Amino acid sequence: MINQRRADGSLRHLTTLDGLRRAEIEQLLERASAYVCAPGQMPPRNQNLAGVTIGNLFTEPSTRTRVSFELAGRRLGADVVNLEVQLSSRAKGETMLDTVHTLESLHFDVFIIRDSQSGVVAHVAANVMPHVSVLSAGEAHVSHPTQGLLDALTVRQCKGDRFDQLTIAIVGDIRHSRVARSAYEAFTGLGVGELRLIAPPALMPAAEEFPQGQRFTSPETGLPGADVVMMLRIQKERMEAAAIPDGEEYFQRFGLTPQRLALAKPDAIVMHPQPMNRGIEIESSVADGPQSVIRSQVSNGVAVRMAVLETVVRPGGSRT
Amino acid sequence: MINQRRADGSLRHLTTLDGLRRAEIEQLLERASAYVCAPGQMPPRNQNLAGVTIGNLFTEPSTRTRVSFELAGRRLGADVVNLEVQLSSRAKGETMLDTVHTLESLHFDVFIIRDSQSGVVAHVAANVMPHVSVLSAGEAHVSHPTQGLLDALTVRQCKGDRFDQLTIAIVGDIRHSRVARSAYEAFTGLGVGELRLIAPPALMPAAEEFPQGQRFTSPETGLPGADVVMMLRIQKERMEAAAIPDGEEYFQRFGLTPQRLALAKPDAIVMHPQPMNRGIEIESSVADGPQSVIRSQVSNGVAVRMAVLETVVRPGGSRT
Amino acid sequence: MINQRRADGSLRHLTTLDGLRRAEIEQLLERASAYVCAPGQMPPRNQNLAGVTIGNLFTEPSTRTRVSFELAGRRLGADVVNLEVQLSSRAKGETMLDTVHTLESLHFDVFIIRDSQSGVVAHVAANVMPHVSVLSAGEAHVSHPTQGLLDALTVRQCKGDRFDQLTIAIVGDIRHSRVARSAYEAFTGLGVGELRLIAPPALMPAAEEFPQGQRFTSPETGLPGADVVMMLRIQKERMEAAAIPDGEEYFQRFGLTPQRLALAKPDAIVMHPQPMNRGIEIESSVADGPQSVIRSQVSNGVAVRMAVLETVVRPGGSRT
Repeated sequence: MINQRRADGSLRHLTTLDGLRRAEIEQLLERASAYVCAPGQMPPRNQNLAGVTIGNLFTEPSTRTRVSFELAGRRLGADVVNLEVQLSSRAKGETMLDTVHTLESLHFDVFIIRDSQSGVVAHVAANVMPHVSVLSAGEAHVSHPTQGLLDALTVRQCKGDRFDQLTIAIVGDIRHSRVARSAYEAFTGLGVGELRLIAPPALMPAAEEFPQGQRFTSPETGLPGADVVMMLRIQKERMEAAAIPDGEEYFQRFGLTPQRLALAKPDAIVMHPQPMNRGIEIESSVADGPQSVIRSQVSNGVAVRMAVLETVVRPGGSRT
Repeated sequence: MINQRRADGSLRHLTTLDGLRRAEIEQLLERASAYVCAPGQMPPRNQNLAGVTIGNLFTEPSTRTRVSFELAGRRLGADVVNLEVQLSSRAKGETMLDTVHTLESLHFDVFIIRDSQSGVVAHVAANVMPHVSVLSAGEAHVSHPTQGLLDALTVRQCKGDRFDQLTIAIVGDIRHSRVARSAYEAFTGLGVGELRLIAPPALMPAAEEFPQGQRFTSPETGLPGADVVMMLRIQKERMEAAAIPDGEEYFQRFGLTPQRLALAKPDAIVMHPQPMNRGIEIESSVADGPQSVIRSQVSNGVAVRMAVLETVVRPGGSRT
Repeated sequence: MINQRRADGSLRHLTTLDGLRRAEIEQLLERASAYVCAPGQMPPRNQNLAGVTIGNLFTEPSTRTRVSFELAGRRLGADVVNLEVQLSSRAKGETMLDTVHTLESLHFDVFIIRDSQSGVVAHVAANVMPHVSVLSAGEAHVSHPTQGLLDALTVRQCKGDRFDQLTIAIVGDIRHSRVARSAYEAFTGLGVGELRLIAPPALMPAAEEFPQGQRFTSPETGLPGADVVMMLRIQKERMEAAAIPDGEEYFQRFGLTPQRLALAKPDAIVMHPQPMNRGIEIESSVADGPQSVIRSQVSNGVAVRMAVLETVVRPGGSRT
């Protein structure tokens, strides 16, 4: 794990939520709250990052997250450029750094990186010049820190900031999920009362991971009393590898139906990082129902990314 | 057909010109006129759409139309983002709406959609939140409303606003052409005097379509007396399907040569939506000749799209 | 060769450095110097090209050069649009011009073109309307003028403006290199004292090219006394065609090692246009060593492109 901080302790990179202090997470959420915007309202804009150049390096396709970061940067007055470069596992380490150093020499201030290979984001962060910040936009199955923050922001909006009084259940393919890992770090960082992991054995993470998580092998045992039900996307390849015959059986055992949701608290909220497999991990009536906050998650994503960009970038002042 | 209007009768979407009142079309053209710009002049710019976020969703490639909308939005001060997403026929309806709702939650105000499948644009328009507008940038063979408006604007520039005194001939593959359909709606909406359809039988639209059009099977019979000659692009696949042996024979029978153009009025103008097949539907000397207004059409496209964007978007005021 | 100038002698296009007067090159470098920016500083920005629309037409992939031009344009306040169009050899000449005229009608002021086919850039430049400028971003093996200028700027930064007192060595695949051709034009245009070409016979340009260059077939004979060592990228295909068995042998004979670099002057600088083949044409310890100015070249690229854009574009005044 790389050091994400400057010498003065301030946050420079955000490649993981691991190691962030509770006060830091709360500060980020507080800052993000100022950028939250209801549907149909004009989103807040300012020029706080005017003159700052941000590069989007997405080596995995992801329109939603890429556009969310792009809009976050633009609404703060920054220049955002989409860069189609290879940082892939096949490129030699040296070549990857040459690419990064070249972009750096074009005076980028921030690189936002999504990569399917674990370690690439941190490797870039460890090698860029001191004035450059690196943000992860999703790294292998390991980390997706802004997703973790937007999930925490969504819970806080609905349930208040007393996380110690909350029971949060994460349901589905936790083993392969960067969303689950970053959510775990955010929720435990904020002192969540109880965190439950609900998954079939093949999709449960290794024993040493998620140490504060209580493990359940069925929604029937794991959902009762939950304030938050966070569903995960299941991928076809994973179902096959996990010897779960097909989507229908998965839905039978783990899909979130109105009946299953009724096991949780009556005012429980339903979350999903999207894209959803309707009829596999979640029933449409739940996804679109009154307890769903799935669209708020997307909207909060822009607010969180604006807060993170503002926090790590220091236009002018901190430069050499 | 969806309702394109708000409760107060104002235009919210533009997916088709069908149903627009004459006064509305004229108002759009009037507004567009203010944005028309001669070659070599600085195009007009303002901040009328500052703070507005526009998403370009083109699932068919079209650099020209995409860039035309992009420049129209930018010159009004909006943020324009190109979105590479799938709205395709293979995606399930639910998934398509999830994509749209996700983008909506990022606070887009306008979606500009081009899709090869009929009905997609209207389906999106019918399902977005009340503050979001949807513009068609070309839908299957059905509709291309801003092209219809730019064609009308070009005719008006050259021939004045007494459409009732004009004879307009549309020549070529009318059957498969969204350009012809939207032009028909624009010209008849403006009360065109006479509208002629000139095509081989296999490329003539069904009998119930284009009710005000007079049908001709050769330029020799259809062009005499025309004030406007609008040529359409013919596609190789269509020629084969229509049992028209090859481009040369098509050119022999329907290609616009100087001789054929001489059948029309001496001051007739020549239009083409581009890209052109020179030597198939049009001879180069005509395409580049003094009667051609083909480049003006492109230029007018930006002006029309600025006018449409300004008309449908209501920054601030109308929002919930 | 096309005329790059307006009637008043001022520079309108930049497709080649051939024919530029020494004073013009020096003026461009002087102007660029004002835009040079140290690592970690905020790059200079202004609104000198506000209202100007720039189109990037890259038919060969090149993230680095494309982004360099894009940032140059944006930092001068221009609108920059990336255009995915075909200007390729397979498209008919007429079609290519139709594409260009269509874009022109959208009120682009500058086209920046990279194309793998020789002559395309000049053909476009010769056919655009008088208020439009065309800049080459790399043309076949022929020309890459802004690269030549950034190389000259980098030499001037390190060695001062007395080019007549300098010995510059270009090493590698000179025969196929547009970088070498434009660097040659820049350096000889600035009155370089001595220019050396170091390459195996198969990669040496034709006898009539590079008339002021002295030819050497080994670094051992060509490097002694050099102030500047400019390495070129060698491509696998070229090595095979040139019957140079593999990268290792090439490195043995031509790779820039610390030992070879020691043959040049002690304060010689090392340049490379990137991307580098580390371990083939250059050893990592040299690429990253104290004499390397490779990153400065990239940074200077933005400054040079800003200067070129400002020089060729005349917003307002010169328009019809």
